Amino acid sequence: MFDVNEYFDGNVKSLAFKAGEDKATVGVMAAGDYEFGTDSQEHMTLISGEMSVKLPNEDKWRDIAINETFIVQAKVSFLVKIGCDSAYLCLYK
Amino acid sequence: MFDVNEYFDGNVKSLAFKAGEDKATVGVMAAGDYEFGTDSQEHMTLISGEMSVKLPNEDKWRDIAINETFIVQAKVSFLVKIGCDSAYLCLYK
Repeated sequence: MFDVNEYFDGNVKSLAFKAGEDKATVGVMAAGDYEFGTDSQEHMTLISGEMSVKLPNEDKWRDIAINETFIVQAKVSFLVKIGCDSAYLCLYK
Repeated sequence: MFDVNEYFDGNVKSLAFKAGEDKATVGVMAAGDYEFGTDSQEHMTLISGEMSVKLPNEDKWRDIAINETFIVQAKVSFLVKIGCDSAYLCLYK
C-alpha cells in the first residue's frame, strides 16, 4: 500500500503516499550531509529537526525553519545538512 | 537506524525518530476508520490529508486542520477517520 524508500544506508527513509493529485513522501533523515537529485520539481517542508540547504544557483546555505517550504527545480541536485534527526514532507509536482 | 512500524494490514505505516528528547513518528494512513491506543501522552499533528478524531470524553467528532495539533492522554483509546491518504507527526511525551 505505502512503499518504504531507503537511502544512504538507511540514514534517510521515507513513506510514499498521495497528497491530492501529487505524489508525496514523508521521511526522516539522520544528522549528516546529503546530496539529492530531483526528477520532478519538489516542494519540501521541514516538519521537525534542523535542516539547511544549498540549492542550485544559490551561493549560500539557507537555514530552513519548521513548517517552511522550499522549492527545488526538476533535474538538478542540491545539498542538505541535517543537524539532528529530522522529518520532512516532500511533494512531487 | 529508523524503525518502520506497520499497522492495520499496512494501511498505517510510520517511521520512528527522535524529536529533541521526545520519541516521535511520522506516518501515513490510508482512507478508513481506525482505533488507536496510547501508552504515553501523544501530541499528533496533521501534515497532509483529511482527518477527524473522537477523543475520550468528547461526544463529537472533531475535524483536524492541516498543521493542527491535538493531544491524546496516556492509556486511552481514540477513534480516527481518514478521508484520503494522510500524513501525520506524533510526539510521545
